[in-house]
Amino acid sequence: MTEKNLQVVLASRPKGPATVENFRLVEAPIPAAGPGEVLVRNHYLSLDPYMRGAMDDVKSYRAPQAIDAVMLGGTVGEVIATNNPAFAVGDKVVGMLGWQLYGVSDGTMLRKIDTTHIPMSAYLGVVGMPGATAWYGLNRIITPKAGETVVVSAASGAVGSVVGQLAKGKGCRAVGIAGGPEKCRAVTEEFGFDACIDYKAGNLAADLKAATPDGIDGCFENVGGEGFDAVLARMNAFGRIAVCGLIAGYGGQPIPIRNVRSILVNRLRVEGFIVSEHLELWPQAFGEIGALVAGGKLKYRETVAQGLEAAPEAFIGLLAGRNFGKQVVKLV
Amino acid sequence: MTEKNLQVVLASRPKGPATVENFRLVEAPIPAAGPGEVLVRNHYLSLDPYMRGAMDDVKSYRAPQAIDAVMLGGTVGEVIATNNPAFAVGDKVVGMLGWQLYGVSDGTMLRKIDTTHIPMSAYLGVVGMPGATAWYGLNRIITPKAGETVVVSAASGAVGSVVGQLAKGKGCRAVGIAGGPEKCRAVTEEFGFDACIDYKAGNLAADLKAATPDGIDGCFENVGGEGFDAVLARMNAFGRIAVCGLIAGYGGQPIPIRNVRSILVNRLRVEGFIVSEHLELWPQAFGEIGALVAGGKLKYRETVAQGLEAAPEAFIGLLAGRNFGKQVVKLV
Repeated sequence: MTEKNLQVVLASRPKGPATVENFRLVEAPIPAAGPGEVLVRNHYLSLDPYMRGAMDDVKSYRAPQAIDAVMLGGTVGEVIATNNPAFAVGDKVVGMLGWQLYGVSDGTMLRKIDTTHIPMSAYLGVVGMPGATAWYGLNRIITPKAGETVVVSAASGAVGSVVGQLAKGKGCRAVGIAGGPEKCRAVTEEFGFDACIDYKAGNLAADLKAATPDGIDGCFENVGGEGFDAVLARMNAFGRIAVCGLIAGYGGQPIPIRNVRSILVNRLRVEGFIVSEHLELWPQAFGEIGALVAGGKLKYRETVAQGLEAAPEAFIGLLAGRNFGKQVVKLV
Repeated sequence: MTEKNLQVVLASRPKGPATVENFRLVEAPIPAAGPGEVLVRNHYLSLDPYMRGAMDDVKSYRAPQAIDAVMLGGTVGEVIATNNPAFAVGDKVVGMLGWQLYGVSDGTMLRKIDTTHIPMSAYLGVVGMPGATAWYGLNRIITPKAGETVVVSAASGAVGSVVGQLAKGKGCRAVGIAGGPEKCRAVTEEFGFDACIDYKAGNLAADLKAATPDGIDGCFENVGGEGFDAVLARMNAFGRIAVCGLIAGYGGQPIPIRNVRSILVNRLRVEGFIVSEHLELWPQAFGEIGALVAGGKLKYRETVAQGLEAAPEAFIGLLAGRNFGKQVVKLV
């Protein structure tokens, strides 16, 4: 066991793209479990795009990350000391203990997990928040019927790859949008989408049209910008668009959408959502996804960075799309 | 009785803004009611923005208006001959008999109306399609709760003025957007909105902010463009936007929206709709609105053009915002 806790704190707010200088690695004493608390040794840290938003001090759906505080983040690990009767030493748990090797929790927001058939790290991805995100947007907003066409941007990612596989399971045509031939190949060959558009190839609108001969009924939007406009132009009447993520353009300005008229002409429903506001549905989502994963029916990929000190660089790589599938940091 | 039927047909499709040259006034014989049909003398013709879209030969939610065919349009009039047992001579009826003095109908899409307490022309406006549009967007998409703030663009119009009054009736703060001080004055003083922003005054975003101190929970969007972006910037979490109409920018190109991010950050629901796809709700809408109108509790305004030959010019004025409230053409 390491003698000290290691933590990554927010050193400064990014001006434009985040850099490693915005983070600082610090040592701290290993905390003690107080009354009713447990001490957890984190095995994996989750890196997620939402963290970039939390680094800014602007109005959003969550409070900004405080300067000099440990970076927020999902973790999975093992209970090593407990003053809480709901948890025993040795329990594997998923929680939000942040970018550090050890964390304490009073048990709220801490969930015991079964790692018999599902590896620990998957609880940060396919059976974690990204999986719940995919499940919610598809099943509660897009609500696709067999035979419909569902388009997913960032299709090789932790969320997108699950959306497409769940849509296929419902008898839909699943079409991904991803960056580069390698990711596109994985989207079709590994994740089983019917087609994948490489947005870097420069023919996004034409390629999307060719891949969606019957138009688009549902869209799971992780990106925004040019791809979102191309999707809007192909939407069928009464289409549904779940808005899960939107990137900014150069200079941090939002990218406008041009095909606004499609919302009216096609009577679309466009709905933004934050999966952490629908925790009551996570058990149902994890039940369905977990069974598929344990049975080998739902594929996922991970990119694993080694050691907490590698987290800032891995996070910046995630924002730049250099990861493949769920980005985690292995801490043990 | 005029000896001939007079009709306005579509002479040519507009290139850019519609002009009077796109229409042609023609004479035709008065049609005879065939088996099962009724002959109606139209008293009022409705002019509506959707007609501009039907003049183009582009994909939309309705088939384009055919060249040389009588312009499509809602009408209200009196049955003067009948071979249909469901209608008697003298019945007042509302239907879609187009831009002409006389029309025949087999009775489908023809509805008998009671003009005892509600004037005939109101069945083309406040208790007609515009009223149903206001009712549907407010009650089925925005679903406002007392205390919420609802913003309505084109607030002095046939649809917008009803939206705001219905919202007030539900205990909401109703804020309009309209063009010019005269329209804004009517929106607050006549229709009873709490505030109205004059978008022509040049301070749209700041004025809207001042008029919506608690943010915006619902928006009934009739216009799009700059006002839509200003509304998006003020939306509260879980806000609802009913997209009822969108104008085009210079050159006929759509106007992009910039504050797309608000859809995600505020978990908005943005929904386009076409009220003619929800005919099953019109009786409920007309029941509620009709009672308010008959009781003097819901105000409306009309701009009345005189004679069928005045219809093209009145229609172009409608598109330019020169009307006030519901634009109709008096035919008798």
